[in-house]
Amino acid sequence: MVFLLYQADIDEGGVSLMDFFFNPTGIALLGATANEKKGGFSILNNLMTGFSGRIYPVNTRYSEISGLPCYADINQVPDPVDMAIIFVPAPATPEIVQACADRGIPGVIIQSAGFAETGEKGKGLQNQLAEISRRTGIRIWGPNCMGLVDAVHKKVFSFVSHSIWDVGLLPGGISLIVQSGMLSAGFLMDMMTLDKMGVSKVCSIGNKVDVNECDILEYLLKDPDTTSIGLYLESIGHGRRFFETCRNAGKPIVLLQGGKSKNGARAAMSHTASMAGNSAILKGAMSQAGVVQADDFKQMMDLSHTLSLFPNENFHRSGRIAIATFSGGAGIVSTDFLDRHGLTLADLSEETHLRLKNIFPEWMPPANPVDLWPTIERNGVNKAYKLTVDAVCADPGVDAVFLHAFVGGPIWQLKLKPIVETAKKAGKPIFFWIIGNEKDAQQIQEEARRLKVPIFRELSRAVECMAAVFS
Amino acid sequence: MVFLLYQADIDEGGVSLMDFFFNPTGIALLGATANEKKGGFSILNNLMTGFSGRIYPVNTRYSEISGLPCYADINQVPDPVDMAIIFVPAPATPEIVQACADRGIPGVIIQSAGFAETGEKGKGLQNQLAEISRRTGIRIWGPNCMGLVDAVHKKVFSFVSHSIWDVGLLPGGISLIVQSGMLSAGFLMDMMTLDKMGVSKVCSIGNKVDVNECDILEYLLKDPDTTSIGLYLESIGHGRRFFETCRNAGKPIVLLQGGKSKNGARAAMSHTASMAGNSAILKGAMSQAGVVQADDFKQMMDLSHTLSLFPNENFHRSGRIAIATFSGGAGIVSTDFLDRHGLTLADLSEETHLRLKNIFPEWMPPANPVDLWPTIERNGVNKAYKLTVDAVCADPGVDAVFLHAFVGGPIWQLKLKPIVETAKKAGKPIFFWIIGNEKDAQQIQEEARRLKVPIFRELSRAVECMAAVFS
Repeated sequence: MVFLLYQADIDEGGVSLMDFFFNPTGIALLGATANEKKGGFSILNNLMTGFSGRIYPVNTRYSEISGLPCYADINQVPDPVDMAIIFVPAPATPEIVQACADRGIPGVIIQSAGFAETGEKGKGLQNQLAEISRRTGIRIWGPNCMGLVDAVHKKVFSFVSHSIWDVGLLPGGISLIVQSGMLSAGFLMDMMTLDKMGVSKVCSIGNKVDVNECDILEYLLKDPDTTSIGLYLESIGHGRRFFETCRNAGKPIVLLQGGKSKNGARAAMSHTASMAGNSAILKGAMSQAGVVQADDFKQMMDLSHTLSLFPNENFHRSGRIAIATFSGGAGIVSTDFLDRHGLTLADLSEETHLRLKNIFPEWMPPANPVDLWPTIERNGVNKAYKLTVDAVCADPGVDAVFLHAFVGGPIWQLKLKPIVETAKKAGKPIFFWIIGNEKDAQQIQEEARRLKVPIFRELSRAVECMAAVFS
Repeated sequence: MVFLLYQADIDEGGVSLMDFFFNPTGIALLGATANEKKGGFSILNNLMTGFSGRIYPVNTRYSEISGLPCYADINQVPDPVDMAIIFVPAPATPEIVQACADRGIPGVIIQSAGFAETGEKGKGLQNQLAEISRRTGIRIWGPNCMGLVDAVHKKVFSFVSHSIWDVGLLPGGISLIVQSGMLSAGFLMDMMTLDKMGVSKVCSIGNKVDVNECDILEYLLKDPDTTSIGLYLESIGHGRRFFETCRNAGKPIVLLQGGKSKNGARAAMSHTASMAGNSAILKGAMSQAGVVQADDFKQMMDLSHTLSLFPNENFHRSGRIAIATFSGGAGIVSTDFLDRHGLTLADLSEETHLRLKNIFPEWMPPANPVDLWPTIERNGVNKAYKLTVDAVCADPGVDAVFLHAFVGGPIWQLKLKPIVETAKKAGKPIFFWIIGNEKDAQQIQEEARRLKVPIFRELSRAVECMAAVFS
């Protein structure tokens, strides 16, 4: 049966089959409530803030919530309705899902917890859900998940805190598939407010009773708003399908696998009832499929973001890097990191050396890493950086530029745009590492996001991402 | 001769011999200028802002700068003067240092560049300085360095941007010895504004013609304001002395070595004319001496800061960790990191399980990692965290607590103090990882700094630092 479903998804086109989850015309909310402390209120509040389709709260105890008519059960809900969000206690879900199927609703997102992750009793409930899905064909997303946040189209089908709207739901090209609820919310807030990084669709898939990472991945690969995909998974259910999908993806994919250690795997069991596979085998297979592997959450975000900026490029494999820095020490440590990640320090041509010599004092002949401090003192920050980037970008022995900047203080007002334009004209990726005053750093991070260039606060992270681009 | 100097330092007490650098009564500034764009102005401006001793600008072209009388040469400078800062072109330095020695000044900090890092000519100049030091006994700090910033006593003997005062020179217990100028400034700004982390003394030592890492290290080990020491070095000149000093330090020491790769070592040569040693041998020796080794700058800061919070503690070596998290996914990935860093997930006792069960819903029996979400929903954030930390801290099988918190949004107003007090009373270190809204995160970071508990924004970094505490 599982195999048949898989066939259907592929043959009839994964996108159309799953589209009611992402672009429903009307949503029924089972477990809607006027109690502001409950998740059922948060979901309704989020729906009403951003979703422009029809919204139907369902709860026997109300005739109206937040100005919307409330229905006693799913059969009372009028058309159009092609998706339901369910946030009721776990034991009540099988009956409700069956009713949704009977009502002709093609898909539901169950956000309640209390299923296989809690032991035998919950496992029984989850099996009932699986059985209903198999029998009726209704697609079930979840349970034990946080649903969907679509920052581009401002759709929040989730009990995530409403404060997410205050930060503006920064849109971007990264989509995420995460087997974790709270984390997906945390991710979003952190990325948008600290890293100034936007997202497209964040899909929290929980226990995966039916809809799994492959279903969503296939959808996102065809989604025009998605330029790269980051996954946090505690298990991979359909290994071969996942492998083949990744191998033919055509978009960058980054995977963080939870439960790699014995204790981690045990914890995954009680989190999303996931059986973590053999991590060494998985690692090898994922490399073969072209998937970039991460160990930490922010690293996954940084890798996904960086790769989303270079989705279809085919760079010189050797990754010969020119470093332009304000600090000799940072240049040296960067060189050590290049070495560790299989990148090389570019050998600058004679012509590049001559060009650089023009702006450097005689006592400090330039070399790669180019320590700009002596020329910054003479020419100011912007002239020094611009001329150096011009020179190294014109060098055929340079594949990419790694630029370090100190931000803050009156002489350190770096203008990114002319530098970025030079690099883009030359077709060479440029990576920024910044250090300095937080306020100025945030501004320059925002500018870098607008200009679509990668920017980092840790050297090691910058080089890791650079290596992923050149792998 | 070098050997004799070394003996003298040890026998007569390194502190008193170096104290004129850190606590001078009067400072002559050779190369003082009224030109606001020049380093000689920045140094003067910084001295006048924070230093309460006498300041003597020296420059033939002025009779007065910024309201202070300016002297034509060092011989005109009246007493008391026991330190000179030199910021004149490299070729002029030997004569000036000789004049300082003749004037009876015990030490100078040369901040100008243009010495051995630039080639043969500069090497010749540097050799002249070494010869003057050997002949006269004058101590020379630098050249090619950024001098000293003392955030506790508000002494800035450096051309670092004056904007450093705007961020308040946050005082703390970490002192740094860095063979990099610009980086020391960058560090400071980043630590104080992004990480809300204070420092004690930041010593930028450049080419180390005379004063080296051992001299400063010995001084800092006796310095009551310094609780831990971070070093960024491109070479270690006196291996045995350094090794013995570290081994007997009694304070945590963290080392980041630049120039570990072949290309990195070559770059170190043109930065501070340093010959990087064999990094594998160094690594082994440093481990033996109890030095914690870092690969990246912020990592060095995080390790130094964390260790400064536990300077003399002797923890159970096995490092059995209880994780309290808002996110099952974060708990699982943390467990994977514990495994990788030689720490273990604590086995909670039967009693602890019973205590936790009281606050958890029946459908979600608690285990380590303790996923708090089900109890947060029932009891609110503060009760859920406090009761969980109480329970795990009372468990004899738990050595430390790793607490994950989401910050931002109305229900996520976590109060650190009661939690921290519980852990401190139990004598168990507690480590925080936070994710969420940047503004709230900054506030909670500041609170953690005040309460002297380690707090992190990346899981991997938190576990790295935890492992350093338990090593």
